[in-house]
Amino acid sequence: MAITFSNRAKTLRASEIREILKLTQRSQLISFAGGLPAPELFPIKELQDVSRLVLEEFGGQALQYSTTEGYAPLRRQIAQRMNTKFNTSVDDTNILITNGSQQVLEFTGKLFLDEGDVFLCESPTYLAAIAAFRIYGPNPIGVPTDDEGMIMTELERLLKANPHAKFIYVIPDFQNPTGRTWSIERRKELVKLANQYEIPIIEDNPYGELRFEGPILPAVKSFDTKGLVIFTSTFSKTFCPGMRLGWVAADEALLEKFILIKQAADLHTSSISQQEVSKYIELYDFEAHIREIISVYKKRRDAMVAAMEEFFPADVKFTRPEGGLFTWVEFPERIKAVKLFEMCLERDVAFVPGDSFFPDKKVENTARLNYSCMPEERIREGIKRIADAINKY
Amino acid sequence: MAITFSNRAKTLRASEIREILKLTQRSQLISFAGGLPAPELFPIKELQDVSRLVLEEFGGQALQYSTTEGYAPLRRQIAQRMNTKFNTSVDDTNILITNGSQQVLEFTGKLFLDEGDVFLCESPTYLAAIAAFRIYGPNPIGVPTDDEGMIMTELERLLKANPHAKFIYVIPDFQNPTGRTWSIERRKELVKLANQYEIPIIEDNPYGELRFEGPILPAVKSFDTKGLVIFTSTFSKTFCPGMRLGWVAADEALLEKFILIKQAADLHTSSISQQEVSKYIELYDFEAHIREIISVYKKRRDAMVAAMEEFFPADVKFTRPEGGLFTWVEFPERIKAVKLFEMCLERDVAFVPGDSFFPDKKVENTARLNYSCMPEERIREGIKRIADAINKY
Repeated sequence: MAITFSNRAKTLRASEIREILKLTQRSQLISFAGGLPAPELFPIKELQDVSRLVLEEFGGQALQYSTTEGYAPLRRQIAQRMNTKFNTSVDDTNILITNGSQQVLEFTGKLFLDEGDVFLCESPTYLAAIAAFRIYGPNPIGVPTDDEGMIMTELERLLKANPHAKFIYVIPDFQNPTGRTWSIERRKELVKLANQYEIPIIEDNPYGELRFEGPILPAVKSFDTKGLVIFTSTFSKTFCPGMRLGWVAADEALLEKFILIKQAADLHTSSISQQEVSKYIELYDFEAHIREIISVYKKRRDAMVAAMEEFFPADVKFTRPEGGLFTWVEFPERIKAVKLFEMCLERDVAFVPGDSFFPDKKVENTARLNYSCMPEERIREGIKRIADAINKY
Repeated sequence: MAITFSNRAKTLRASEIREILKLTQRSQLISFAGGLPAPELFPIKELQDVSRLVLEEFGGQALQYSTTEGYAPLRRQIAQRMNTKFNTSVDDTNILITNGSQQVLEFTGKLFLDEGDVFLCESPTYLAAIAAFRIYGPNPIGVPTDDEGMIMTELERLLKANPHAKFIYVIPDFQNPTGRTWSIERRKELVKLANQYEIPIIEDNPYGELRFEGPILPAVKSFDTKGLVIFTSTFSKTFCPGMRLGWVAADEALLEKFILIKQAADLHTSSISQQEVSKYIELYDFEAHIREIISVYKKRRDAMVAAMEEFFPADVKFTRPEGGLFTWVEFPERIKAVKLFEMCLERDVAFVPGDSFFPDKKVENTARLNYSCMPEERIREGIKRIADAINKY
């Protein structure tokens, strides 16, 4: 066939994690591999109500073509919630509604990245972000991190070495994959460096509201003084992922670029879904719902951490996340996670080997474990089986 | 600000038509400018039912993350409907569900177009397609058309002159903006030429099911022998546009590329919306619903054509579409449509000047008129006012 694709199409390849997830579809298998929210917590009854109400109230207009920016009341509600929770100062004119925050990542790549362009990110980082950026042919550079976030001396060194870097991509709250959270000090220093080097920050915050203990930290966006921080989040973890509702919050001039990209990409996000979520926030106690999610996930995190403490050998390290969906495990260097994964599949338990979360280097002895989607006794049993595989390795 | 965007971001600009639509928001204005389906025909009651049923039947799974390809039963239903209506031979493995067919157009640009690449399209053509492709920096070349479609000698001349052209984009049924339909002969010849030059065809068919008279013609895709035809359509005109449900049908190897693009772009289309439409098709008489839309739109088309015949001067030409949403008007060359549009706004009536539908040349004396969203008496009154403006021009 003589069909000729674009150069960028040559970068297309299936996500490693999806291939792994295909291996974990057996129902008897205990899977810590996905990143799924717990479906038993989705507000089904409430959604049935608001779906009926929205159609009663707005009729055909609820189903008509709509504005690219998104449903105005929902944009207002999002801005208010962000300001209350994350100490930002945005209003509805700073918000564009998207098909999940994944779409914001893809738009970010489209807006900023030409072939060969550098962007900086945490190492490890969210692999679907790398996948979204990859099609634009960039050169990702991982910034070393510790328990408080990116190491600022390393970031500054890399900014100096890469003066044309296009943006810094970070997940400051309960990071995917590590579960780590940036300290306030690091957030401030990040903005200071971004201001100094005039480089945009992409702050990806899908989990920030799911904090199990202590106060929610102010977003990096809350320290933004030059309009350099582009914030993205989603209803996928607090409401449900199937509706694909996310948003980007940015200064108006930057947001306008995202709006134009959205217009050409798919005109607008589902108007009926936006109205349903808006009506839900209006009529129900969304915060109580989120507290319920937190209480369930906290128990599951506790169960996973307790089981790892009980069963894992002492030389296996892991994070104790203060929120979110994931913990991150570092095995001794002699243990290759991909090989361990195969041994675990034989024991009907699965996780994601950490290899593919590293943007630019090979690290073979890590793993991401998800605890949000599994009852405590299954978590305990699954960790026990992984421990058995480690011991047999 | 030292933020540096990608080269492609420099092409971002607001759609001309959206700027025009902003001028037509006054409620007393008779607007033929939009391309909206009639909201009074949206199946609101039925959607309330299926929304409740899907959540009852599938619970949280209806709202969970889902596969990129789309909801399997809906993919099957779409394939069956395509085969029945358009004489194609596709099955579910050829279908990817997208956020409207606009997303398919954007993916097509991403998959095929590098900067400076040529693609061929009808002249005039759908302007949101040009907008979707534009961000990839291509060079569109318009192929002259007549009442039967592209003129094949012209197409062949342009294929010879542009041996690296990436694809041919066509809207064979009730074209946007002209309302014209390709003859069967031209469809066959198009595939023959595409086979000869081994160039993909993008067949955009949002209106094909809305035929007022005569039998639905076989899709260009139905004549595809080499897997070169990529077909896209949508539920926007037959169900409702607000849900943003469309699809692409292509041979598996090509579809795989679209699936990988979709995965990185936004993971998947709303799972709950897909399940709702699937349940609707299962439980209700979708074909009866489409017949109802046809009967309403046919009356509106009749009203518009009759009023144009009655009121327009004899030197104004217009199409009599056999289906779809639009008619196309050619004024005498001395009449500039943009100027006439301004005179019409003073008379509280609006249309879209045809200028921006031409991909590569300046044509100033045409207009697109939409009749789907307006009762007959308003259509008659609006055409009378346009005629008055023409006479005063």
